Amino acid sequence: MKHLRQFGGGTSEGRSKDKMLLGGKGANLAEMASLCLPVPPGFTITTEVCRFAMEHGAGNYPAELPGEVDAALARIEELTKTKFGDATHPMLVSVRSGAPASMPGMMDTILNLGLNDSTVVALANQSGNERFAWDCYRRFVGMYGEVVLGVTAKSESDPDPFDEILDEVKKQHRANRDQDLNAAALKDAVGRFKAKVREVTGKDFPDDVKTQLWGAIGAVFQSWNNPRADYYRKLNGISATIGTAVNVQAMVFGNLGDDCATGVAFTRNPATGTAELYGEFLTNAQGEDVVAGIRTPEPISELTRTLPAAHAELVRVAKLLEDHFRDMQDLEFTIMKGQLFMLQTRSGKRTGKAMVKVAVDLVAEGKLTEKEAVLRIDPAKLDEVLHPTIDPKARPTPVGKGLPASPGAAIGRVVFTAGAAEEWANRGERVILVRTDTSPEDIHGMKAAVGILTARGGMTSHSAVVARGMGKCCVTACTSLRVDAPKKTAMFVGGGKELRLKEGDIITLDGSTGEVFLGTAPLVPAQLASELGTLMKWVDRFRTLKVRTNADTPTDARTARSFGAEGIGLCRTEHMFFQPERILAVREMILAADEAGRRTALSKILPMQRGDFAELFRVMDGLPVTIRLLDPPLHEFLPHAQKDIDEVAADMGVSSAVITAKVSELTEANPMLGHRGCRLAITYPEIYEIQSQAIAEAAAEVAKEGITVLPEIMIPLVMVPEELRRLRALVIEAVDPILSGASIPYTIGTMIELPRACVVADKIAEHADFFSFGTNDLTQTTFGLSRDDAGRFLPAYLDSGVLPVDPFVALDPDGVGALIELGVRGGRATKPKLKVGICGEHGGEPSSVELCHRMGFDYVSCSPFRVPIARVAAARAALSSEKPS
Amino acid sequence: MKHLRQFGGGTSEGRSKDKMLLGGKGANLAEMASLCLPVPPGFTITTEVCRFAMEHGAGNYPAELPGEVDAALARIEELTKTKFGDATHPMLVSVRSGAPASMPGMMDTILNLGLNDSTVVALANQSGNERFAWDCYRRFVGMYGEVVLGVTAKSESDPDPFDEILDEVKKQHRANRDQDLNAAALKDAVGRFKAKVREVTGKDFPDDVKTQLWGAIGAVFQSWNNPRADYYRKLNGISATIGTAVNVQAMVFGNLGDDCATGVAFTRNPATGTAELYGEFLTNAQGEDVVAGIRTPEPISELTRTLPAAHAELVRVAKLLEDHFRDMQDLEFTIMKGQLFMLQTRSGKRTGKAMVKVAVDLVAEGKLTEKEAVLRIDPAKLDEVLHPTIDPKARPTPVGKGLPASPGAAIGRVVFTAGAAEEWANRGERVILVRTDTSPEDIHGMKAAVGILTARGGMTSHSAVVARGMGKCCVTACTSLRVDAPKKTAMFVGGGKELRLKEGDIITLDGSTGEVFLGTAPLVPAQLASELGTLMKWVDRFRTLKVRTNADTPTDARTARSFGAEGIGLCRTEHMFFQPERILAVREMILAADEAGRRTALSKILPMQRGDFAELFRVMDGLPVTIRLLDPPLHEFLPHAQKDIDEVAADMGVSSAVITAKVSELTEANPMLGHRGCRLAITYPEIYEIQSQAIAEAAAEVAKEGITVLPEIMIPLVMVPEELRRLRALVIEAVDPILSGASIPYTIGTMIELPRACVVADKIAEHADFFSFGTNDLTQTTFGLSRDDAGRFLPAYLDSGVLPVDPFVALDPDGVGALIELGVRGGRATKPKLKVGICGEHGGEPSSVELCHRMGFDYVSCSPFRVPIARVAAARAALSSEKPS
Repeated sequence: MKHLRQFGGGTSEGRSKDKMLLGGKGANLAEMASLCLPVPPGFTITTEVCRFAMEHGAGNYPAELPGEVDAALARIEELTKTKFGDATHPMLVSVRSGAPASMPGMMDTILNLGLNDSTVVALANQSGNERFAWDCYRRFVGMYGEVVLGVTAKSESDPDPFDEILDEVKKQHRANRDQDLNAAALKDAVGRFKAKVREVTGKDFPDDVKTQLWGAIGAVFQSWNNPRADYYRKLNGISATIGTAVNVQAMVFGNLGDDCATGVAFTRNPATGTAELYGEFLTNAQGEDVVAGIRTPEPISELTRTLPAAHAELVRVAKLLEDHFRDMQDLEFTIMKGQLFMLQTRSGKRTGKAMVKVAVDLVAEGKLTEKEAVLRIDPAKLDEVLHPTIDPKARPTPVGKGLPASPGAAIGRVVFTAGAAEEWANRGERVILVRTDTSPEDIHGMKAAVGILTARGGMTSHSAVVARGMGKCCVTACTSLRVDAPKKTAMFVGGGKELRLKEGDIITLDGSTGEVFLGTAPLVPAQLASELGTLMKWVDRFRTLKVRTNADTPTDARTARSFGAEGIGLCRTEHMFFQPERILAVREMILAADEAGRRTALSKILPMQRGDFAELFRVMDGLPVTIRLLDPPLHEFLPHAQKDIDEVAADMGVSSAVITAKVSELTEANPMLGHRGCRLAITYPEIYEIQSQAIAEAAAEVAKEGITVLPEIMIPLVMVPEELRRLRALVIEAVDPILSGASIPYTIGTMIELPRACVVADKIAEHADFFSFGTNDLTQTTFGLSRDDAGRFLPAYLDSGVLPVDPFVALDPDGVGALIELGVRGGRATKPKLKVGICGEHGGEPSSVELCHRMGFDYVSCSPFRVPIARVAAARAALSSEKPS
Repeated sequence: MKHLRQFGGGTSEGRSKDKMLLGGKGANLAEMASLCLPVPPGFTITTEVCRFAMEHGAGNYPAELPGEVDAALARIEELTKTKFGDATHPMLVSVRSGAPASMPGMMDTILNLGLNDSTVVALANQSGNERFAWDCYRRFVGMYGEVVLGVTAKSESDPDPFDEILDEVKKQHRANRDQDLNAAALKDAVGRFKAKVREVTGKDFPDDVKTQLWGAIGAVFQSWNNPRADYYRKLNGISATIGTAVNVQAMVFGNLGDDCATGVAFTRNPATGTAELYGEFLTNAQGEDVVAGIRTPEPISELTRTLPAAHAELVRVAKLLEDHFRDMQDLEFTIMKGQLFMLQTRSGKRTGKAMVKVAVDLVAEGKLTEKEAVLRIDPAKLDEVLHPTIDPKARPTPVGKGLPASPGAAIGRVVFTAGAAEEWANRGERVILVRTDTSPEDIHGMKAAVGILTARGGMTSHSAVVARGMGKCCVTACTSLRVDAPKKTAMFVGGGKELRLKEGDIITLDGSTGEVFLGTAPLVPAQLASELGTLMKWVDRFRTLKVRTNADTPTDARTARSFGAEGIGLCRTEHMFFQPERILAVREMILAADEAGRRTALSKILPMQRGDFAELFRVMDGLPVTIRLLDPPLHEFLPHAQKDIDEVAADMGVSSAVITAKVSELTEANPMLGHRGCRLAITYPEIYEIQSQAIAEAAAEVAKEGITVLPEIMIPLVMVPEELRRLRALVIEAVDPILSGASIPYTIGTMIELPRACVVADKIAEHADFFSFGTNDLTQTTFGLSRDDAGRFLPAYLDSGVLPVDPFVALDPDGVGALIELGVRGGRATKPKLKVGICGEHGGEPSSVELCHRMGFDYVSCSPFRVPIARVAAARAALSSEKPS
């Protein structure tokens, strides 16, 4: 059993597929070497050795490893015609981490290893460049001192000890910049670095190159468990037990003169997807200089002028690698004395736009099948394609950061009330509604605004849900924001500073990152390229899951249909109730003393609801429309402002005091768990009766126009089968005379959104034609977590990794998912062909869509702007679960 | 296959065990007949026939039935030497329902069947009493007209048509009472009754006795499905498919003269259990006269004077039946011309006190084994034995009715605030705290009061839980009550009337029925008879489930230990936080700006908590004490009154405005699902750290006194295993140095109170030494039902039978129970010996205790006054699940 794999010199013991064993970097170095590409020779110590060391204690390795390392070093020496630690032709190596999953910058790297007081002289002689040699040496001692020997700043506020020394040296040698230091000054710096190491560690800096190497290997392995890496893994759901590989590779130098360079390149433009070599380089530099940002790199095209042969070689290699991996590659290279060396290749990160274009182009070029192209799409990244975004090239510094609740970007003037939003918007201003939190009463303000910013809430709080439904940019839970709406001011606090906002100030929101900027940030509009259309055609061929939309208005429904929605999965009737001309009647219904009073008020609402439904049916001609009967706690509709109370009182002919008392009586301790959903209809059956009547009359009216109407009536918040049995009978009694008369088929189903409903789903299914899982509420009740309040502690849960992901964003497979599976199994045990869907916010989140596919759902339903995302996710899920043919 | 069973005349085709087939009444009539007791002959048509008719349509019976009925009638004729419809010796029969489960008064009965214009003359001649005969006839026509022919009042507000006629007849004949009507008047009434029947039904009243009989049989079968019976079955969980039997039996008359009587008797005193024949009778009357309450019955002992032979026979029969059924019997009898006839026997309903005494006495008399006696105990009824009750003999009319939240009775003066309660109590007054709802801040007022009455809440709302914990009478959800605390008044509204209460008015609460009375109702104190002690000794021998208590104070703990508690299953540390000398420090902790501030405040609380825990450990010497770390949302502790805000602000050296702002910031939309439970410790670990320290220090201190301390530290509201993993480590770090040093064994476990925790219990168990199911919160989240708000609609659910029982009272087996089972299975899959308990309010409810036993729990924990109930329920559960030996 070998503990390392060698590469370079025309052979290679590993391949790209060996990522678990060799890490991403090592596997691809091996692959490049196997393609006879110019890779400096080296070897990769496997992740198994890392796991061995984790198990047996740091620094403990398999007994055979030292011998294998020696043999591998000998082979590098032979290929490079150098010798490790040799006083005339010294070999230098880099020691780099490389885990199976990409963890950029999280672990440690050491360059120029193999230098000591004698080899540095040889390097100077050999290169004819004394300054170069000493610069390598001081970089090595600094890096090694920090990473391996632990000579670091005592606290975050203290300066780095080596930086401090270098600053002193620069002062003494009157140098402004690092590159102004001459060989003598650098030699001085090395001496002082070493003295510092002795002072801190009590030991001399190791001169022996083997000691150096083993120290570096150990440090890289141990960096797997540094807190930074640990945190990164938790956030990204990477297992802590995998371990990292260590890559030891002969150094090549981009800093040996003007015929040397170092750079990065993408085989296609990662912003647009255009097929062009894209990247930048620095002449006469080492890799870390690019990162440090001391000099401005030049675009790759410049290389044709300065080093044309190397450029031609890079173009050749890039094409070869892209063809080989059949994907856009992100390359690291060094040019030493005009000769190109490849140091890394991997799949390149790209924008949503580039992702789509590259995938479609690669199919056109015959390099990918359509299925493969679809599997290359990250559905979540499609968001960027569908919404305007902040220009990534001109990104200002944010003044605040919240949750990216609804994507896209928005620029507008700050207003603090829904009324002001409408007022300013009516004047033609673009406004951003800034609130502590929004309530359903703010809906008109949200409609009037181009973006919404709230101090509280979360990814699925009211503001987030409504904003996504509207395709409107929204940032929630911006915890540093303090809003004082009465005074028309707000403040960003934190870091000891305060920044005041007043009405009319312009801000920019980035709903894709949660960032808030003062003033106008440059935007890039959404451009729906033709490639997206091509892609979506493939997608629809592959998926089996239907995709519907959550839409309450004809506008939303039209948008969603244009995005490919195959019906409405959730129409929330209550959103129609908030319109100003209706809210009065709704309030009268709630505040009525008896059934007769409620019926009077409901009869005012009936024709309006009928009109709403008719219009939705028209837009969705031929597609099913699921209408949920009234769900929210009634007190959400209650008047709170004195003016509103007086209005209701006058209209109902009672005193304002009576209304005030009723409002206070209806106040609930936990409205989410209160008098809502079908509980409203158990106590006041006339509400559902009249809503059902409105649906049936609308359907009959529209059917006469020749439109195909497929109404599905949905009863929310069922906890016991008996609720559904009764309410189904009530709905049938209200709609059947009308619908059967007009030969309109209809179904009656229920939302499954309480844990109990999942558990007794077999019994509930006896009275249901379909189940629609309401995963927002199901997540709330399963976790015992209010999405309105979670903003106070959920960020801490996510930051510290107690929760890997916000369960309101991605469906929790272990908890909520397990209950849903129970529910689907129960329901289908009673009715094998029971239609099953999801209408929570998760219906548009890729991992959740995949989970729904696996659990045998018939459809998902999501907000209009997420429909394309869900379609792609559904296709990917179908392809992933295909048996290999 | 026979469709009926005959009885009487020395033989009997059925037995007591045939209740499913013959109904309770029929089976016991058969049993009595088989014992050669004086039962008028008759037959029982089986419940199978009822089911046949339900399946094939009303009035459709098995083809053989008419022949069997004829044969059975012939046998009665033979035994009674009468003939059905005969003009000289007519046979009259009663036709009565009788279901397998007792459904008193829910279905129909017809007496005196067989009368018509010719048989009535014969009856008059035969009895020599013309008035008697016509009285029977008018009773029969009225009863038959209503029940079989449907001649009833048009609506509830209209008068009964036969009553209306009888009133007219009385007016015409100048009679005040029914018994003042002579034969002629009654004959007149019969004529008019028949005319009414013709008017309403368009048909003549049937003269043919067979037609009468089949009409009556059909009506009784159909009454199984009348709405009243349907409702009763839903409420009592009786299946609608069982059906009723019909009993046809020769009439005997208690109204033939002064040597006749009718009555009811218990073989023992049903109020006290004393072994004495107890009951009452009416001379010269028919059964319905007793119910109608027109005449006052006489005590059974009077019968020795008036009809000594019949009395002696009744004593003989009573003893025989009690010995035979080995339980106290409830008898119905008629004496005709000095001869006793038995019409019914069944187990007698009795008070809790009588229940215990009868069971223990029957064992002493050698009639029951100890196990049988325990199985005869209804644990819920023990409540009556443990609390004072309102004298059932002198029960006034209630002015309001709520939920019976905590049993017993209380009399006191009305106060409307916790402050007033303490003030009045300090003056030596007994007070009843009347609130819209109570909050934790009211706890001192509740302590000061003898009873609590709230307009809102439910069986497990704050007031109910705390009151039961204190063993204090409490009525919640008194929906007709409107409280205006600032004005120190309250009002009972409803029925168009208003009744005002002011501070200081005396009221009486019945916590066992939920009734509220004005003024002082007479009370009967709790008397713990020696029989209870005997019973509890048996109980403890049989049960396998341990019974602990929920106790937060040494007083509660002492009470519970005296009731037999075997440890504390739940000590809620937050209740200690509300004490006046602590609340300030608690508020400072919550309002602190940072960890340092919180630690300063916590360090003030530490010594006080240490003292609390030490005292609990002393009381529970040798028994385990489970202490739950802080659970409720912090805002529960926040100051709301300006005075309190100012006090906190002054103590913390900040402005009141800062505190007001912080209070508003901490306000939650759904606190039940908010920042509470172990979420507090994920964000502020120091809270649990210092509480753990207080527990450990208290344990070490008390152990030095020679007391055996068994601390169990419990972490609430875990939703993901990672929470528990971290907090367990935190607790161990805080307590282990102290406890291991003092060699005190301890365990760390968790509450399972969220659906997600049940689902991932296998993973949670990795970090838990025990599970304690928090069924209050688990019920809330499983049902999506806030117990604070459910009062607005849960009564409607229970009244209409949508829910058979309040899930906060009895553990819901199908939903919550299924999740618990999942949790137990998961936990024990990881740790087969995992200790499992329950600490919700259900821990003291008999059906829930039985469910816990079946699911393999180790213990239940309940409020102190429920400990004996839980012990009995546990014993019954163990005995019920015993394999027959």
